[in-house]
Amino acid sequence: MYRTHTCGQLRIENAGESVCLSGWVQKVRKLGAMTFVDLRDRYGITQLVVEESAPEEIKNNVAKLGREYVIQVRGTVIERASKNNKIPTGDIEISVNELTVLSESETPPFTIEDQTDGGDELRMKYRYLDLRRPIVRKNIELRHRMAQLVRNYLSNQNFIEVETPVLVKSTPEGARDFVVPSRMNQGQFYALPQSPQTLKQLLMVSGFDRYFQIVKCFRDEDLRADRQPEFTQIDCEMSFVEQEDILDTFEGLIKHLFKEIRNVDIPTLPRMTWIDAMEQYGCDKPDIRFDMKFVDLTNVAKGKDFAVFNEAEYIGAICAPKCAGYTRKQVDELTEFVKRPQTGAKGLVYVRYNEDGTFKSSIDKFYTPEDLKIWADACKAEPGDLLLILVGPKFKTLAQLCDLRLEMGSRLGLRDKDVFKPLWVVDFPLLEWDEETQRFYAMHHPFTSPKPEDISLMTTDPGKVRANAYDMVINGVEVGGGSIRIHDSALQSKMFDCLGISHETAQEQFGFLMGAFKYGAPPHGGIAFGFDRLASMFAGLDSIRDVIAFPKNNSGRDVMLDAPSEIAKEQFDELGIQLKTN
Amino acid sequence: MYRTHTCGQLRIENAGESVCLSGWVQKVRKLGAMTFVDLRDRYGITQLVVEESAPEEIKNNVAKLGREYVIQVRGTVIERASKNNKIPTGDIEISVNELTVLSESETPPFTIEDQTDGGDELRMKYRYLDLRRPIVRKNIELRHRMAQLVRNYLSNQNFIEVETPVLVKSTPEGARDFVVPSRMNQGQFYALPQSPQTLKQLLMVSGFDRYFQIVKCFRDEDLRADRQPEFTQIDCEMSFVEQEDILDTFEGLIKHLFKEIRNVDIPTLPRMTWIDAMEQYGCDKPDIRFDMKFVDLTNVAKGKDFAVFNEAEYIGAICAPKCAGYTRKQVDELTEFVKRPQTGAKGLVYVRYNEDGTFKSSIDKFYTPEDLKIWADACKAEPGDLLLILVGPKFKTLAQLCDLRLEMGSRLGLRDKDVFKPLWVVDFPLLEWDEETQRFYAMHHPFTSPKPEDISLMTTDPGKVRANAYDMVINGVEVGGGSIRIHDSALQSKMFDCLGISHETAQEQFGFLMGAFKYGAPPHGGIAFGFDRLASMFAGLDSIRDVIAFPKNNSGRDVMLDAPSEIAKEQFDELGIQLKTN
Repeated sequence: MYRTHTCGQLRIENAGESVCLSGWVQKVRKLGAMTFVDLRDRYGITQLVVEESAPEEIKNNVAKLGREYVIQVRGTVIERASKNNKIPTGDIEISVNELTVLSESETPPFTIEDQTDGGDELRMKYRYLDLRRPIVRKNIELRHRMAQLVRNYLSNQNFIEVETPVLVKSTPEGARDFVVPSRMNQGQFYALPQSPQTLKQLLMVSGFDRYFQIVKCFRDEDLRADRQPEFTQIDCEMSFVEQEDILDTFEGLIKHLFKEIRNVDIPTLPRMTWIDAMEQYGCDKPDIRFDMKFVDLTNVAKGKDFAVFNEAEYIGAICAPKCAGYTRKQVDELTEFVKRPQTGAKGLVYVRYNEDGTFKSSIDKFYTPEDLKIWADACKAEPGDLLLILVGPKFKTLAQLCDLRLEMGSRLGLRDKDVFKPLWVVDFPLLEWDEETQRFYAMHHPFTSPKPEDISLMTTDPGKVRANAYDMVINGVEVGGGSIRIHDSALQSKMFDCLGISHETAQEQFGFLMGAFKYGAPPHGGIAFGFDRLASMFAGLDSIRDVIAFPKNNSGRDVMLDAPSEIAKEQFDELGIQLKTN
Repeated sequence: MYRTHTCGQLRIENAGESVCLSGWVQKVRKLGAMTFVDLRDRYGITQLVVEESAPEEIKNNVAKLGREYVIQVRGTVIERASKNNKIPTGDIEISVNELTVLSESETPPFTIEDQTDGGDELRMKYRYLDLRRPIVRKNIELRHRMAQLVRNYLSNQNFIEVETPVLVKSTPEGARDFVVPSRMNQGQFYALPQSPQTLKQLLMVSGFDRYFQIVKCFRDEDLRADRQPEFTQIDCEMSFVEQEDILDTFEGLIKHLFKEIRNVDIPTLPRMTWIDAMEQYGCDKPDIRFDMKFVDLTNVAKGKDFAVFNEAEYIGAICAPKCAGYTRKQVDELTEFVKRPQTGAKGLVYVRYNEDGTFKSSIDKFYTPEDLKIWADACKAEPGDLLLILVGPKFKTLAQLCDLRLEMGSRLGLRDKDVFKPLWVVDFPLLEWDEETQRFYAMHHPFTSPKPEDISLMTTDPGKVRANAYDMVINGVEVGGGSIRIHDSALQSKMFDCLGISHETAQEQFGFLMGAFKYGAPPHGGIAFGFDRLASMFAGLDSIRDVIAFPKNNSGRDVMLDAPSEIAKEQFDELGIQLKTN
């Protein structure tokens, strides 16, 4: 061992001991004839001192040190003259009597400090140096701790982690698969799993009862902000359960994580139906750290001389508390915000409910103060508040209002990263209609069970069928989702019918699952959490990249490894493939 | 929840309680007007009884039950008239007053019992049914338990599990890569990792200090018996350590596993040099559950009139205790054994050392009893023992003798699966010469460090250089291996020179690692255990397949999923590849 202690370990109690430390040179300071070196490792920083009286050899060695040199020192722990109460080892330093350079370092391309001068691209290319920065390292450590907590919590509840295969079968339904050409079965391809969904269902058929896996999944999608082609799920499945049992079990898990990691006691999670979430928050992942729910003014705001409102399918408002004093400029900014292409509203109507009880709005010529008072009352607005109103087709407008609400939440400081408000969103629709392809798609996936009372609607009004499906949402982010599954092959066939998947295709792609259901399948259901997302939330980060040791960029490249890359001709030949020739 | 208890839970203390159970029908027996049902789940079997007095509806339902039906019952726990002491629930049964069929089952293609009538192929096709067999399920449970023990043991020693990427860069040096065509970077390919070797070394450069990961690795090799294209490693790496520190740390881990899983106290692991292992056991993974070490007779057995011996590079013997009485037929069997193509000896010489002190050998006409006595003494043989002798080129003959020794060990019952004899094999050669390609290859991998005292031999006599490399061997199986790594780019370059890898190729393939070494790399080393192999050994199995939930067959196929399979034309087009056209 190249050390007796780590750089985070020594305290005043160790004074007088002979120790050996190894680590990286964080900083070198000369003070007269003495030299101070901050030595860093994963555990902390310890100050070394090479005194005037030190042997010449050590003084020569220390003079040559640069940032990020790896050194080993022997010396004596002594009490510091001027203590540093900012670090746990700040009471002591090591008086060095032996110093060995284990490894030299060129000047690193950016500073190895929490506040670094390196840009994103440079840091990714030299990710191995970026990971030395304590702020990044801590995220990876947190991720490890969370994985351990999850594994132990679930194991203690009789869950078994089962490794499912990575080389599986391509099923084009769903997102795009990454495929792997087979050399031994030429012309055929494996796929990397988008999730172990069907395999974990087979494990239920096998009687495994309580399964989990922290597992890599793969989707070959164009990378929107903060997506990765490979990502990690906490994947779980249980047998002989109903929806309530799953919600209970995993509410327990998430509370455990919050308690252990953040020391926060999370109360029982509220439940919200999908339709309430859509109508009150405009999306299926509401941020309930703040209120500002939508108010439907469609019925009260029509019938005057304002065609825009009269012709609108939906008129919705939010009430921004204490914002009546917003300047013209501020209101204009909000108008610009909702008109951005990604939100896409045509305009914004405001109503100031002034402190003196008067109203001022952008549509004063169509509505009397009495009209506006009715709106304000509907919104439970108080003098001093500001109503913000959007109109248009219902679901489109709800989505726009959602953007506006979140923007107002941010402006008003209501989205504190250290406040956590998890909830369950339940009763999702089973199917969603796609205008372009003129067919229904499974909102979660084709194995999700309809609510028993809605099964008859599958043939008459498929869009109305509710699913036994649920998402866990925290602070406006979907961190997990799942469903009770179909466990009988007749109902599964009916589901494929609804999705316009032919019997042949179903058989070819999911025959093994439908076959398995013929031999005694238990009722079962499960959930999968996005582990990267969850870890980044616990770390207080916006991006999942910083909780991934070696992430890929937006083009799916690992710029450090320089992957993907070209392969050799022999590899093509062995696999029996070639690049497309036209 | 579809149950109040599991099928392994109820005891005599529960008598009188109303309970609800769910599970699979293992067996139905009619006994007069009563019907008994064995209900099975992951936790055990509980006997249900439908009494004569039960409502007609239940009697009708129970009459329809078949094997593997999934049912839910409610009833009362009662004491059994005739107890079954073979199962933990054998004192009680459930008097059923409600029975619901949750899922019917067709007759399964094989019996769901430890001793099944299903052949290997059938069981793999219906692996989800095979996994219901308690004997298979227990292996998967054991694997989970081992993974938990490993994770907690290492975490408690400050190791951090870091997920390394699955989509990495192809490096043709080593085994064959599985590759993944990139859609976003057409014409380029990711590779699936053969191991996270270079990435874990980068984590050491990053200062992570103690890393582990239970991780899937991939090799596209022709599948010899008991290999899988995807397999799992316990992959570990440490910084600021020497070989001794690694051996200590992971000896601790393996002792912990033996204690927890098998309740066996393993003493300190013996160390054996690679050359001793080769000369005494004929292979680098000696089975030391039994002795029967090789004796080199080259010097004592030459110089008589027997050309075969006189011309041989090497003459080696093993002494089979108490086998002098072997019949002619038994000796012939051994001769046939060594002449099999996979062993490849030309013949076998035997010397019976009879109980009465006389000798009988297959080469009596060349050697006197006095000659043979000298051999017997060299072998420390006693009257009643049998010497078995092979001759030929040294390393080839050692390997043949190894086969023979293991065969004799098996015949003599010296290879008990419940006896575990782990050891470390150390001081491996750094390089091995390949006749065919006329170049050196890395015996472990190109990042393995030579012993410092042997570095000068790298230019003068590369074949003689010993590596800081080690394997953990248990009962003749290599369960883990590793090395101290090179941590300086100059030595790494020298190593690539020895391997005939040009600077350009090294830069292209491993530039990121050589680059990383320029910014302060700590001394580091590690080890990787084959987790499938380790689990199968702890389970007392010969094959790794039974500790893998969904294994592939010898052609790399998953016959249950029917993967690999053909993919759609659009998938080819999107990836910009096609099948080879000539």
